[in-house]
Amino acid sequence: MTDRLRLAIAGLGTVGCGVVRILQRHAEMLAQRAGRPIEIVAVSARNRDKDRGIRLNAYDWEDDPVALARREDVDLFIELIGGTDGPARAATEAAIAAGKDVVTANKALLALHGHELALAAETRGRVIRFEAAVAGGIPVIKALTEGLAGNEITRVMGVMNGTCNYILTRMQDSGRSYDDVFAEARDLGYLEADPTLDVGGIDAGHKLALLAAIAFGTRVDFAGVRLEGIERVSIEDIRQAADMGFRIKLLGVAQMTGRGLEQRMSPCLVPAASPLGQLENAANMVVLEGDSVGQIVLRGAGAGEGPTASAVLSDVIDIARGTRLSTFGQPAASLRQAGPAAAAAPAPYYLRLKLHDRPGALARIATVLGEAGISIDRMRQYGHEAPAAPVLIVTHKTSRDALDAAIEAMPATGVLAEAPVAIRIEQV
Amino acid sequence: MTDRLRLAIAGLGTVGCGVVRILQRHAEMLAQRAGRPIEIVAVSARNRDKDRGIRLNAYDWEDDPVALARREDVDLFIELIGGTDGPARAATEAAIAAGKDVVTANKALLALHGHELALAAETRGRVIRFEAAVAGGIPVIKALTEGLAGNEITRVMGVMNGTCNYILTRMQDSGRSYDDVFAEARDLGYLEADPTLDVGGIDAGHKLALLAAIAFGTRVDFAGVRLEGIERVSIEDIRQAADMGFRIKLLGVAQMTGRGLEQRMSPCLVPAASPLGQLENAANMVVLEGDSVGQIVLRGAGAGEGPTASAVLSDVIDIARGTRLSTFGQPAASLRQAGPAAAAAPAPYYLRLKLHDRPGALARIATVLGEAGISIDRMRQYGHEAPAAPVLIVTHKTSRDALDAAIEAMPATGVLAEAPVAIRIEQV
Repeated sequence: MTDRLRLAIAGLGTVGCGVVRILQRHAEMLAQRAGRPIEIVAVSARNRDKDRGIRLNAYDWEDDPVALARREDVDLFIELIGGTDGPARAATEAAIAAGKDVVTANKALLALHGHELALAAETRGRVIRFEAAVAGGIPVIKALTEGLAGNEITRVMGVMNGTCNYILTRMQDSGRSYDDVFAEARDLGYLEADPTLDVGGIDAGHKLALLAAIAFGTRVDFAGVRLEGIERVSIEDIRQAADMGFRIKLLGVAQMTGRGLEQRMSPCLVPAASPLGQLENAANMVVLEGDSVGQIVLRGAGAGEGPTASAVLSDVIDIARGTRLSTFGQPAASLRQAGPAAAAAPAPYYLRLKLHDRPGALARIATVLGEAGISIDRMRQYGHEAPAAPVLIVTHKTSRDALDAAIEAMPATGVLAEAPVAIRIEQV
Repeated sequence: MTDRLRLAIAGLGTVGCGVVRILQRHAEMLAQRAGRPIEIVAVSARNRDKDRGIRLNAYDWEDDPVALARREDVDLFIELIGGTDGPARAATEAAIAAGKDVVTANKALLALHGHELALAAETRGRVIRFEAAVAGGIPVIKALTEGLAGNEITRVMGVMNGTCNYILTRMQDSGRSYDDVFAEARDLGYLEADPTLDVGGIDAGHKLALLAAIAFGTRVDFAGVRLEGIERVSIEDIRQAADMGFRIKLLGVAQMTGRGLEQRMSPCLVPAASPLGQLENAANMVVLEGDSVGQIVLRGAGAGEGPTASAVLSDVIDIARGTRLSTFGQPAASLRQAGPAAAAAPAPYYLRLKLHDRPGALARIATVLGEAGISIDRMRQYGHEAPAAPVLIVTHKTSRDALDAAIEAMPATGVLAEAPVAIRIEQV
């Protein structure tokens, strides 16, 4: 390695251009901080002729990212192509095989192939860093891998998809339906080409799987994340939850339990007055809990050119400074294969029912819950919207199994006017 | 250096014992993460016979922390003695001179002597790390030095003294006076032996000076922090500020301006709905703003055994992993000596007045403000408490100089029943 740190950047979309801009604008400051100059040697993208508003003529151009990754004059390969397979994976593998360090913003690639890539890199003494892959500009990978390294991590939580949080807070503020606000977000360009990645919780689930691997010393296991998107969150639930002092968030939760590793990405109720409950619009928030440190809350922009490029630069500067960490905070070969927890830890639940307006209706529901061993913390019955009365119930802690059993038994009472809605209340 | 990282711990108070406990409880996990065993070799404290509830018999004992710092069988010296001079400074200097790395929780030592210590350490190729010195368990030194290293930092803010935040939020909640709540905090053991360190803003000012040095690449300059404590915050101002949608916080702010480095630690109004406004009790919060990343908010416990020990361990594990950074994020020899800004950047101000109940009183005050070039954003006059009427004014942005000139001119109007109170409103 020469004194300069020589970079190759594959992918010149929003983030790639942002990285180039920072390196050009702050070359001197970055060299001061890193202790050596950081220089782009070569770049690659699909379209050479596109006007990106940045000067690229000082850098070599490669049409093929794999060729870029293999260049002899490159120390560090920055993968900003995206996608779980195809050129992103091929180029990353090529870079590792050629003895380069890798910085990537690609959560999907790492959530699916991170363990194999980490093993390959560590076998060759190379590092893979991915601060930009989780929660944009928030230095959460660093906080978890390094800042909280003295802790046994007890739980990791996060609102890590800005688009979903935008949709949910916009529904809350405007009183409009999911379909309405979804269409607005699509028109504003907030959604991925395949919107299921956002609203289905897949993108946020990738991030959660990466955090869980670091937190619990386990092999990254995206398949073990129980995914539920926000598509079925109704404006009625948002309104009623608010009325009970809650907000609905697409919340990721990972914790190690006696029954295995629990990873959930699903709509949850959180107290409106909590930091998570107060998180509005497209902001991201990650909550880290450790046995010594207690609870740490990190908040910032989860996407966008500047924040994501800032995270890429953080990794680049670390490598320039000589910091060399295992991809997931300990050698990949030492990561355990944790079985997924069979069921989520018990929690209180929010239950919204519509009951036929007839004597004893509520008593029958209460009886069904009691028979399932579920006790009621709070209950509200609203003014009758004849012929059905809306009823909200907040239960005490219960297992989802018990709750599902109760919900299954409810139709037999003959008092349900609609299928019940149940949403977990996460204790934050 | 042997394969093991060999530690010496000087000071076995709350934090020192916490560090020992983590190292004993999590030895295997820490070795896994650090890539090598981390072992305590020797310890030192004032009183050998005190029962601290931890096993120390496996470690050598030194009565003299300087002798401890010089031991040949030690790689890393952990200074948890405290104090700006005396044994803490002597032992730290001895450790550096003997070629040891240093981890410290001592904000006062570094705020006053950090530049010289960093120069000495870097001359010898040694590192000094101090995550535990600022905001307890929150990994803010790491976030700023590493996580945001790609950014030109535009502003750093923080509520970094839990005791002050406890007193202010307790006043708010209970409606009791400063003196009352101060006495309660003292009885609860929340205050330093010299309470001025807390309520005078000195402790938080030390922390701000350290953050500013990293953020702006300047030599740590505690003398350049404009300090104002919370002793004169009245329950009336807390109540009236709340009525206008604000909270009063002991807020540190550092920013580089065209007129020099501005470092302030003083009571400020912040919006009640902002993350800083919502910070309650003894929690700490640091807000970092960078040109690419935007605003990052970090929140957690700022003191206590577990959180502070967690921060010490973070530094220890970094060093065990081979991470070697300059104390203030770039070589100490390259840090600039920034002059302190002559005046704080313009801001809106909160102004509380009591006026004699006579015709034209308010007009005279408005005229004085107008003549000083200060325009009024919002004004409230409260029901007359004969013979004087309370008046609250929120100004538009103005310089403190203009405001002081206006306040000086007010007595001549003959309408003031009491000296006016002015508090800066920080735009967060």
